[in-house]
Amino acid sequence: MSTDDRAPRPGDAPFTERTPRVVAARRLTRRSGRDRAARFLAEGAQAVREALAWAAAGRGEVHELFVTAVAATRNPDLVRAAVDAGVRVSGVTDKAAAALSETVTPQGVVAVCSPVDVPPVEALAPGVRLVAVLHGVTDPGNAGTVVRVADAAGADAVVFAGDTVDPHNGKCVRASTGSVFHLPITRVRDAAEAFDGLRSAGLRLVAADGHAPEDLVTADLRGDLATPTAWVFGSEAHGLPDDVVASLDASLKVPIYGGAESLNLATAAAVCLYASARAQRA
Amino acid sequence: MSTDDRAPRPGDAPFTERTPRVVAARRLTRRSGRDRAARFLAEGAQAVREALAWAAAGRGEVHELFVTAVAATRNPDLVRAAVDAGVRVSGVTDKAAAALSETVTPQGVVAVCSPVDVPPVEALAPGVRLVAVLHGVTDPGNAGTVVRVADAAGADAVVFAGDTVDPHNGKCVRASTGSVFHLPITRVRDAAEAFDGLRSAGLRLVAADGHAPEDLVTADLRGDLATPTAWVFGSEAHGLPDDVVASLDASLKVPIYGGAESLNLATAAAVCLYASARAQRA
Repeated sequence: MSTDDRAPRPGDAPFTERTPRVVAARRLTRRSGRDRAARFLAEGAQAVREALAWAAAGRGEVHELFVTAVAATRNPDLVRAAVDAGVRVSGVTDKAAAALSETVTPQGVVAVCSPVDVPPVEALAPGVRLVAVLHGVTDPGNAGTVVRVADAAGADAVVFAGDTVDPHNGKCVRASTGSVFHLPITRVRDAAEAFDGLRSAGLRLVAADGHAPEDLVTADLRGDLATPTAWVFGSEAHGLPDDVVASLDASLKVPIYGGAESLNLATAAAVCLYASARAQRA
Repeated sequence: MSTDDRAPRPGDAPFTERTPRVVAARRLTRRSGRDRAARFLAEGAQAVREALAWAAAGRGEVHELFVTAVAATRNPDLVRAAVDAGVRVSGVTDKAAAALSETVTPQGVVAVCSPVDVPPVEALAPGVRLVAVLHGVTDPGNAGTVVRVADAAGADAVVFAGDTVDPHNGKCVRASTGSVFHLPITRVRDAAEAFDGLRSAGLRLVAADGHAPEDLVTADLRGDLATPTAWVFGSEAHGLPDDVVASLDASLKVPIYGGAESLNLATAAAVCLYASARAQRA
């Protein structure tokens, strides 16, 4: 089949929200649907662009691109790139696009992708120096923002451990602004198993804990942050459980110099990961 | 009048959403209403606690506390503190609390406060070393998170410059988790005037600009961040206008070591403000 057969032709009726392939894709907005189909949705021009690059690099697969007429006109490059890559491109109505959207203002362009997560042994390859671990993080926007921060700080991987949100959740994908496609993501349901894997990879496990007696500046001045490190972040509401903190190699807080009680998860992660990145690159 | 006169008595009918004082307070959920009345709403136990502490320190005034029966039972300390401070405490129905709420899940406790902002000359007192400036930041959640980060990093003040969101916006107050009550906040509509005031206070004006040729680690190693600094942050969508960047003393980017295009506003602010805080305290 020539790739052109996969592009919508003028005159083709766009898929509606009742077209079986749209109905099937809509199930991917729920975790159970994603788990069953082993596929997820990446919405918006930026996410779709990153997904196509990720697939082109042989790291995953884009199965289909749904696009409204307006979005196709706005993003001719994306449609062309998808067609050239042999991805099936299907025109959809605005209502169908809204059904596939998890945003208030549907973007009109949604890719059906294979999962981004890889086995732990692949994510934690020899030589990893900086890893972000999410433990019990249930807010998908926070999780996605940490993936973005980890990517920016040059982390080698992000581990979704324990009862952490699905990295393929639409809000997580969106908050990551494409970063879920950039660096290896792995999921380990059993947190103790995740920590074992991280230690086997030669990483020092450091809890980011607002109640820790020592702050990261003090540890950094002693040279501690220059070593290969996995930062472990807990939920915004409850932080890390005491037994998890006790099971790690160290715990450090971001120093609070003013009147705030704490930082939120993403801003704390930014300070921690950038402190390590800088120390490791000095 | 004894302070006990100001507490709701058992048997008092709670205010409804049609009670004039609730109707008047509801207008404070809109900027025009806040500007006209020179009052704003702080919702939730944490924000109310911080507001009462701020008023007790003589930095502002809490005019009234609206509380549902459930929230009063959950937060007896807050109600007691308000009564002791001579604040009028009014019982409200759940529906009235919802009318005063800007959240999906109303907290049931809302304080009517005088504005937190102070004149620039007061916020930028002699000896200020670290200031965060928001220029054209329109998302109230982002603005509030930067106030929280600035507070945590020990900044001396936050300047809301140009077309920046109202610091009294409910989402901004909530995202700040009480920090709007902790450090001086000032609003300067004319950004050039704000920059003049910051320079007069002896601060070096540094644009946080993802497109800057130099990154903050390089500048820090040269000792630049140890000097009194005002970090200027632009909108998440558009960053800072070129002419604003050109009018400042320097521009620096957060280094991006991985594949991410950028950081979001709050995480970038965290890295910038903490880099300065650390350099200044070294």
